[in-house]
Amino acid sequence: MKFCSACGSNVSVVIPEGDNRPRFVCDHCHTIHYENPKIVTGCIAQWQDTILLCKRAIEPKYGLWTLPAGFMENAETNLQGAVRETAEEANASVENMRLFCVFSIPHISQVYTMYLGDLVDGQASAGQESLDVALMTEDEIPWQDIAFHVIEETLKLYYKDKKRGVFTTHYGDIIKQSEDAYRVNYF
Amino acid sequence: MKFCSACGSNVSVVIPEGDNRPRFVCDHCHTIHYENPKIVTGCIAQWQDTILLCKRAIEPKYGLWTLPAGFMENAETNLQGAVRETAEEANASVENMRLFCVFSIPHISQVYTMYLGDLVDGQASAGQESLDVALMTEDEIPWQDIAFHVIEETLKLYYKDKKRGVFTTHYGDIIKQSEDAYRVNYF
Repeated sequence: MKFCSACGSNVSVVIPEGDNRPRFVCDHCHTIHYENPKIVTGCIAQWQDTILLCKRAIEPKYGLWTLPAGFMENAETNLQGAVRETAEEANASVENMRLFCVFSIPHISQVYTMYLGDLVDGQASAGQESLDVALMTEDEIPWQDIAFHVIEETLKLYYKDKKRGVFTTHYGDIIKQSEDAYRVNYF
Repeated sequence: MKFCSACGSNVSVVIPEGDNRPRFVCDHCHTIHYENPKIVTGCIAQWQDTILLCKRAIEPKYGLWTLPAGFMENAETNLQGAVRETAEEANASVENMRLFCVFSIPHISQVYTMYLGDLVDGQASAGQESLDVALMTEDEIPWQDIAFHVIEETLKLYYKDKKRGVFTTHYGDIIKQSEDAYRVNYF
């Protein structure tokens, strides 16, 4: 951020009075421009013994597999966002949605909220941001080609809960430790 | 938003190519300025048969009571945000935190995440944004003077779970219907 979106003047990074961390503040109109984490919302859509995965047609991680998910938009609910992303990325309808996991990813200032639901009629096809979609059994999950660590963790939790026959709401943090290593804290 | 924070030129509201909703887009450098919901994170801090409430020293809802909560910051986890807000607003430490509820409030584009935890040593005092803090029993909760509907719903859920002796993770939407009326959807 270089310029104030309210008046167009330059911004500086300063700690405002009464605050305890640096913010972008306009040199002219003194507007404080806060930046906060974004929510990514999506789902595991079940159909018989399979779940719906999407092959990414966009960067980052073009060509790798993920669950349908994307940035929550203003004026929608968290669940509406998950349903919308599933429609956009996989032309798929979902129902019986319940909150399955909430993961904080502080190094990218994101919080993932993933729901668990049922795919309606088993119907899905590639949306604009997907090269392909597939209904996969556990044996078919391409574990080496999953786009994001948070999605890999979500899938692991899903199969763990599925084996014990009880789905609960999970929450935790994904902490990046190096280029390819993450620590996952559940609490 | 009137000016581009990247180059200082004017922005227009247009639907970018490949998108499906209006965004602020720079007339000059074409940067798309996305706006997304913000997360408010906080907690119910228990001490013996009481919980910690804070009397707001800032607008909106100056002088009304609330649970310690505030905007999640970049580079922190959702739980860290709840702990930090409790320290800032009530000079209080909390432990044994588990996710208690997640509420979407689409008319203000916010998602509340509220944890349930234990107040350490029963110690709390008014922080900079509080006029007062108090450890209240259920009978002492000032239901007519609670600052936000989402906090009232969180407190109701808490006492409901407390009565049945089981705390679970709840999620739902708070839909504004008129100036003083809300509908709450649990799913």
